[in-house]
Amino acid sequence: MSVAKPAVSVLGLGMMGSALAAAFLKAGHPVTVWNRTAAKTGPLVAQGAEPAADVAGAVGASELLVLCLTTNDNVRGILEPVAGSLRGLTIANLTNGTPAQGRELAAWAAGHGARYLDGGIMASPQMIAGPDAYVFYSGDPKAFEEYEGTFGALGGARYVGEDAGRAALYDFALLIGMYGMGIGTMHAFALAKAAGIPAKDLADPLREWLNAMALFITDEAEALDTGEHLTDVSSLAVNQAALPNLLNTLSDEGIPTEFFQPLERLINRAVEEGYGADGLTRLPDLLTPRR
Amino acid sequence: MSVAKPAVSVLGLGMMGSALAAAFLKAGHPVTVWNRTAAKTGPLVAQGAEPAADVAGAVGASELLVLCLTTNDNVRGILEPVAGSLRGLTIANLTNGTPAQGRELAAWAAGHGARYLDGGIMASPQMIAGPDAYVFYSGDPKAFEEYEGTFGALGGARYVGEDAGRAALYDFALLIGMYGMGIGTMHAFALAKAAGIPAKDLADPLREWLNAMALFITDEAEALDTGEHLTDVSSLAVNQAALPNLLNTLSDEGIPTEFFQPLERLINRAVEEGYGADGLTRLPDLLTPRR
Repeated sequence: MSVAKPAVSVLGLGMMGSALAAAFLKAGHPVTVWNRTAAKTGPLVAQGAEPAADVAGAVGASELLVLCLTTNDNVRGILEPVAGSLRGLTIANLTNGTPAQGRELAAWAAGHGARYLDGGIMASPQMIAGPDAYVFYSGDPKAFEEYEGTFGALGGARYVGEDAGRAALYDFALLIGMYGMGIGTMHAFALAKAAGIPAKDLADPLREWLNAMALFITDEAEALDTGEHLTDVSSLAVNQAALPNLLNTLSDEGIPTEFFQPLERLINRAVEEGYGADGLTRLPDLLTPRR
Repeated sequence: MSVAKPAVSVLGLGMMGSALAAAFLKAGHPVTVWNRTAAKTGPLVAQGAEPAADVAGAVGASELLVLCLTTNDNVRGILEPVAGSLRGLTIANLTNGTPAQGRELAAWAAGHGARYLDGGIMASPQMIAGPDAYVFYSGDPKAFEEYEGTFGALGGARYVGEDAGRAALYDFALLIGMYGMGIGTMHAFALAKAAGIPAKDLADPLREWLNAMALFITDEAEALDTGEHLTDVSSLAVNQAALPNLLNTLSDEGIPTEFFQPLERLINRAVEEGYGADGLTRLPDLLTPRR
């Protein structure tokens, strides 16, 4: 016995929205597509999608609306005029946005009788439906349960809680982690270049080293959850002594040290506050407002 | 036919120096040990090491001297008085230091007829001789060739060039990469904590994500070596638009944004200079003095 796959309307056909619609099509879902600039529907219609003449048409075609617009202001802008038609539908908003915007849209959707899920896509458009792509979802738990299989067409589907802002929060936590790693690698390569070392000679040792260091993220989490930060490997006092050497070497090579000065100040503060024997895992707690 | 393993004198028996001496002993080398505080030789003598009464004794006992002191000032301080006895010996200095210090010590050693290798240990003392430990070496190529097998007792041995400062430079490049990643993870965990998410819930997604992003280090190196930075994945202009959202979310949660303001400024500058369509791989070149 085969069950028909749920129909999906995809609104917003930039690079990411087009990749999402193509993945739903490939998985056998009836797909309706809408974009402000109608020409973008062409390639998807060629793959079997139905083009909607307007937002109302897209909203009327499927019980699941997947939105992927440039900003959440656009989401509100296109849904406001059709708010009266949303009752009973599920909105899965995969537009990039903040946790606060996710919560606001969830409240707005609830006010119009729609179920709301917010999503954070952890993939580039090229990766969608591939083995490494996944999406964080948060919001209405029953809506997620109903459409979990449908979302599977895009890659992994990870539900992180009822608070609709939480998917964006996970998304942002991973992105800020990535930007930090990017700060690290850009300085590593700048240092190599200043010393005349080709970037390719540094790439493998750097990647292996960061992968090895990433294993400590599990220990970092345990230290944070238990509050036990004492270490016999690399204490804050040891780091306080070592970091100036490193920053002086950057300076010697003509590379500014400004990216690491806030870290130097935070480590100094931690040692001053009596945490010299703790590991670096002490630091996140010193960043947060209430301790 | 079995060949006797080279004798090694290890000077400096802190946690790391003791681990090095123990690894040489375990691999079957005759090991002489010296430490300013003689009591630290005890455990190693129990494992079969010979204690040297003074630095001269340690220098006279082996043709390979492995130094692991607190600073390179200490290295110079203990070797100066025995400089006349160094001719023909090999100094492998595994003390933490800067590239400039490595070069100075190499010149000093050459002036006294000794061969010099500088080393950067990429491991904690607990990891020495284990499968993930390795040491960068630079300096005299013939000395490295002669003792490569001996160094194998400590873990991997990676020779990175004749310039004696290069081992410290690789070491520092990896460390600055790690500090950057640490800046990222501490903010990721701070963001999770502010939102009431247990650190353990974030740990696996964060580690997997950073491992996936680390794969791009190879692309970053290729872009840097070829100068081709155009991207269709995540341009500087896209990052310029996305980063303020992220920093506003940090601020909303009461987390200071100072660690990422230099990045925001650098991305703005890159876009102003006409690199908006390039990827983040453009940034290391903007950090270095001459472009």
